[in-house]
Amino acid sequence: MRATVYHAPGDVRVENVPDPKIQQPTDVIARITHACICGSDLWFYRGLDNWQAGWRTGHEWMGIVEEVGSEVRNFKKGDRVLAPFAFSDGTCEFCGKGLQTSCLQGNFWGMSNDGGQAEAVRAPFADGTLVVVPKEVEGDDAMLTAILPLTDVMSTGHHAAVSAGVRPGGTVAVVGDGAVGLCGVLAAKRLGADRIIILGRHEKRLEIARRFGATDVVTSRDEQAKSEVQEMTKGGVESVLECVGSESSMDTAIGIARPGGAIGFVGVPHGSETINLERMFLSNIALRGGVAPARAYIPELLADVVAGKIDPSPVLDLTVDLDGVPSGYGAMDSREAIKVMVRL
Amino acid sequence: MRATVYHAPGDVRVENVPDPKIQQPTDVIARITHACICGSDLWFYRGLDNWQAGWRTGHEWMGIVEEVGSEVRNFKKGDRVLAPFAFSDGTCEFCGKGLQTSCLQGNFWGMSNDGGQAEAVRAPFADGTLVVVPKEVEGDDAMLTAILPLTDVMSTGHHAAVSAGVRPGGTVAVVGDGAVGLCGVLAAKRLGADRIIILGRHEKRLEIARRFGATDVVTSRDEQAKSEVQEMTKGGVESVLECVGSESSMDTAIGIARPGGAIGFVGVPHGSETINLERMFLSNIALRGGVAPARAYIPELLADVVAGKIDPSPVLDLTVDLDGVPSGYGAMDSREAIKVMVRL
Repeated sequence: MRATVYHAPGDVRVENVPDPKIQQPTDVIARITHACICGSDLWFYRGLDNWQAGWRTGHEWMGIVEEVGSEVRNFKKGDRVLAPFAFSDGTCEFCGKGLQTSCLQGNFWGMSNDGGQAEAVRAPFADGTLVVVPKEVEGDDAMLTAILPLTDVMSTGHHAAVSAGVRPGGTVAVVGDGAVGLCGVLAAKRLGADRIIILGRHEKRLEIARRFGATDVVTSRDEQAKSEVQEMTKGGVESVLECVGSESSMDTAIGIARPGGAIGFVGVPHGSETINLERMFLSNIALRGGVAPARAYIPELLADVVAGKIDPSPVLDLTVDLDGVPSGYGAMDSREAIKVMVRL
Repeated sequence: MRATVYHAPGDVRVENVPDPKIQQPTDVIARITHACICGSDLWFYRGLDNWQAGWRTGHEWMGIVEEVGSEVRNFKKGDRVLAPFAFSDGTCEFCGKGLQTSCLQGNFWGMSNDGGQAEAVRAPFADGTLVVVPKEVEGDDAMLTAILPLTDVMSTGHHAAVSAGVRPGGTVAVVGDGAVGLCGVLAAKRLGADRIIILGRHEKRLEIARRFGATDVVTSRDEQAKSEVQEMTKGGVESVLECVGSESSMDTAIGIARPGGAIGFVGVPHGSETINLERMFLSNIALRGGVAPARAYIPELLADVVAGKIDPSPVLDLTVDLDGVPSGYGAMDSREAIKVMVRL
């Protein structure tokens, strides 16, 4: 089969690789129909993660089950399945707690595991990982595209909102207008927030934010952004979604949180960072979140997408085929695209 | 009257100052019977805070109401009252939320306000701040000493435990064996924790920790402490109480937290600090806490002290009179005393 392989910073290639085979009785083999390129893929693409040549890429995928291991109970050949960006055994302490990203046997797609930017994938721990997509949406391309972001960015935006304690009638700020930030707006709206302030600077993305439910837009940065949000909220925001992962964005998030409020952080930090702990201390601002347990959230979010209540698909603003994956990375790296869908 | 006044690092003096007078109809004047010296007082004593000569000291006190402003409803002359370490109006948004330390009109005792290491104090917003001590304990010196730590360290230890999500049957680690850490052990025990690991190195303090409910003691530091706690808990602790406020103690707290767990931080940080945000992210470790809203906690804790259910008084291991306050600072600075009580 063909799959995307990392070679070096700026160099991913679609190559022939061995077909995946059932290795454990809990595996399934799925033929991939949809995948994505993620903002977090840009870290290795830009040489900022310590990646090895030969590793597979892509952690967001949907596909059709082709073969089922002897112990798999929940799926059969022909089922359409959606994968969260990490696989998980479904049986350990952390899976039991709904924190499947800390699964004792789990891992992320790609690297030395099969990746999603490929024709097919071996999915370990299928029963603990995959979610079946209802038959009724088969053939509905727009609906399948709306479901696809649940693999990562919509679940991650939801995790930010849940971690920030978004509540009906509440005020929310979303730091970042990337795909996760936009999904954070949609998640906050879904959870009933009254006022949703987005901090970003890209008009096309801010337009999507408005469609998703943003009520206010702040385009300034850093100290100016902090004082604008403090002013417009008379003392800060109860729930802040940090959807970038830089020191500057975290500093902004802490600076705009209201006393007693919470920051839901889902932007990927790299190593140790310097944060204004004194402000958090004096104002009892909580910091919660991390890598989203998408598997825990997909069932409820999928039900709402299928019911037409939410549609995160506008974040997918460029579609490529498998051969187009390298150019898709380029489009995201240059910020031409918010997020790329790979349609096989 | 006489009150303790800050002059310079290492130099606090008991001096004659003007008697306090009612200034607002919501004030009371209280004659102080008991006060404390706090570990956080050592910051200005050591020249690490930007203090001004002439500022008053002491934020932990108990006393007898002598005079009552015309709008005070809850107190009358002769009542014994306990003060949380911050005063608060009791009417603003944050007081309504039980976060009195963020009161829009509130502040801490001492500095340009009256301090507790004195013969008397003007207490603003008395109805929003003070708590009456039941008449039944009057004259019971041991009981009054047990109540005194609720002004700060016991409420702060409780805030750490609540912020860390301590639950019945849970496993808890307490980083730090100062007065707050010891009270954190007592608070965790009170909330039903099964296993309480204290990280500290002072035998006398660890002995109190054991009396308060600690089941395990770790005397190593940093990486060694992290690996010992990880080993003994098979993967980390659900609830970590950070009761020191240094970069090293926060790093230890993050390093011993279990995936999905929470750190309740109450050690006072100073400015920005570098923390291992990547570990927090990958394991969904939450950081909550800050300056404790003691006013919110005192009623329930006071009831338990009066009922004989908890007794935090062992943290008060040295008693001085008002003239002895400067020597009390010295005893805490040199770690001869865990915490000093001032008995007037």
